[in-house]
Amino acid sequence: MDADKQLQDFFLRGDQIYMPHLSVDCVIFGFHDNHLKVLLLKWKKGGQWCLPGGFVKYAESVDDSAVRILKERTGIDNIFLQQFHTFGDPKREKGKSLKVAEKKSWIHKRFVSVGYYALVEYSKVNPQPDIMSIECRWWDINTVPTLIYDHNKMIEKALQILRLDLNDHPLGYNLLPEKFTMPELQRLYETILDEELDRRNFQKRMLGLGILERLKERKTGGAHKAPYLYRFDKKKYDKAMKQGLSGGW
Amino acid sequence: MDADKQLQDFFLRGDQIYMPHLSVDCVIFGFHDNHLKVLLLKWKKGGQWCLPGGFVKYAESVDDSAVRILKERTGIDNIFLQQFHTFGDPKREKGKSLKVAEKKSWIHKRFVSVGYYALVEYSKVNPQPDIMSIECRWWDINTVPTLIYDHNKMIEKALQILRLDLNDHPLGYNLLPEKFTMPELQRLYETILDEELDRRNFQKRMLGLGILERLKERKTGGAHKAPYLYRFDKKKYDKAMKQGLSGGW
Repeated sequence: MDADKQLQDFFLRGDQIYMPHLSVDCVIFGFHDNHLKVLLLKWKKGGQWCLPGGFVKYAESVDDSAVRILKERTGIDNIFLQQFHTFGDPKREKGKSLKVAEKKSWIHKRFVSVGYYALVEYSKVNPQPDIMSIECRWWDINTVPTLIYDHNKMIEKALQILRLDLNDHPLGYNLLPEKFTMPELQRLYETILDEELDRRNFQKRMLGLGILERLKERKTGGAHKAPYLYRFDKKKYDKAMKQGLSGGW
Repeated sequence: MDADKQLQDFFLRGDQIYMPHLSVDCVIFGFHDNHLKVLLLKWKKGGQWCLPGGFVKYAESVDDSAVRILKERTGIDNIFLQQFHTFGDPKREKGKSLKVAEKKSWIHKRFVSVGYYALVEYSKVNPQPDIMSIECRWWDINTVPTLIYDHNKMIEKALQILRLDLNDHPLGYNLLPEKFTMPELQRLYETILDEELDRRNFQKRMLGLGILERLKERKTGGAHKAPYLYRFDKKKYDKAMKQGLSGGW
C-alpha cells in the first residue's frame, strides 16, 4: 500500500485499530548549549505544525502508546515519558485544525488527549518524520508557531510543570556531561527557567541539596581559573527524584 | 421510570449520552479530628465498594464531568477537584469487577479513567448515595476494603501525590478553623503523612515559610500554658499554592 492509500485507510478505518475519542500528545523538550527547544512535526496535508501525537490501540496501555507514537512519528526511542495532564475540553480542537479530506473520518470527532513530556539532550536524538509528516525538527521555545488545536497550551502547561518541578526535584542527569562545572549546571537551570540566577545563591542552595559530588580534578582549558568539576551522586539523585529534594517534613 | 428500569437503560444505552472507553474517578480524602478518611460508595448490585466515578458526556469537559459525578453520586458540591493521573492500563478492570446483568452493555468495554482528588473537612460534607449505590460513607484510610478494578491503586497514587505535594505546597486552609494552634497544624501534617514529626523542627520550618500570621490572642481553656493562635496569610498562601513554597531558584 502506498503512503497516500495508507493515510486514507487510516482516516476511514483507523477506529477499528484505535480507541475512539482518545489521543496522546508528546511535548519533547530538548536542551543543548544553553538552548531550550521543543520537537514539532509538520503535516503533509496542509502543512500545519503540531506536537507528535497519535492514538491508543484497543489492547495497549496509554503509557505504551505514548512510547510507540513518539518512536513512529520521530524515530526517537528510549526516552522516559512522564504523563503530565489530560486535556479534556470539548472545544480543544476548535483552533487551527488538521486538513483531512475524508469528511466521514472518525478523526473529526472529539478527542480527550493524554499529555506526556520529556526533557532530552537534543544533540543525541535524530528526529525522523514518518509517512504522515513532511518534516520533524526542533523549534526554539520562544519562536514556536501557532500549532493545531490546543497544542500551544499543552507546551505551556508542560513547561509550567517542568519549572515547578525544579523546586522539589533534581535536574541535569542525562542533560549534562557526566562531569560538569557549577556554571554549566546553573546555565541549564537558567535556560529552563528563562531567567538569570544569582551565582552565589545558586551554588549555595545546590550544594545544600546533597546530591552533588565534588571531584578532585578541575576543568582545564579555559582562560579563567580552572573551575571545580562535579558529578551527581546518582543514589541520592534518584532518591530525591522519588521523595522530593526537601526530603519530607 | 423507576430506579431499576433507569439503571437497565443506562447499561444498555448509556453510550448514546456518554463517550465510550472513558471514565472519571474521584478520590475524596476527608480530614477531621486527626483522622484521614476516604469517601467510598457501595453498589446496589453486588455490594462492592468503589470510588465515586462515572462517565463524560459528549459535549462536556472532563473537569466538569468530575464535578457533576461527585455531586450526583455523593451529594457533595463546591469542592475543588484536582486532576492527578490518568489510568490507562488495559488490564485495570481485571480485578474485582462490577456485577452488571446486561451482558451486551457498553460498560463491559475497556475504560481509560481520569483520576481527580480533593481533601476536605469531612464533618462539613454530608454524603448521600444516588440510585446506583446503596451506601456512601467515609472509610478510615487504613481500613479501606478491596475495591473494584484498580481503585485501591488509585487511592495509593493520590495519597502519594498528596504527600509529595506537602514538600512544596501549603496545606490547611479550609481543613483547620480560621484560627489554629501550631500543634493543630502539626497534627494535620502528621495525619496525612502517617508519621510523627519533631515539634521544634516542624515549627521552625513552618514559620520559615512565611505563610503564617501569629495573632495577639492565645488559645484559652486548656490545662497547659495557653498556646499562640495562628492564621494563614491568604495572599502568601495562594501565591505558594501556585509558585511553590521554595519560591523558585
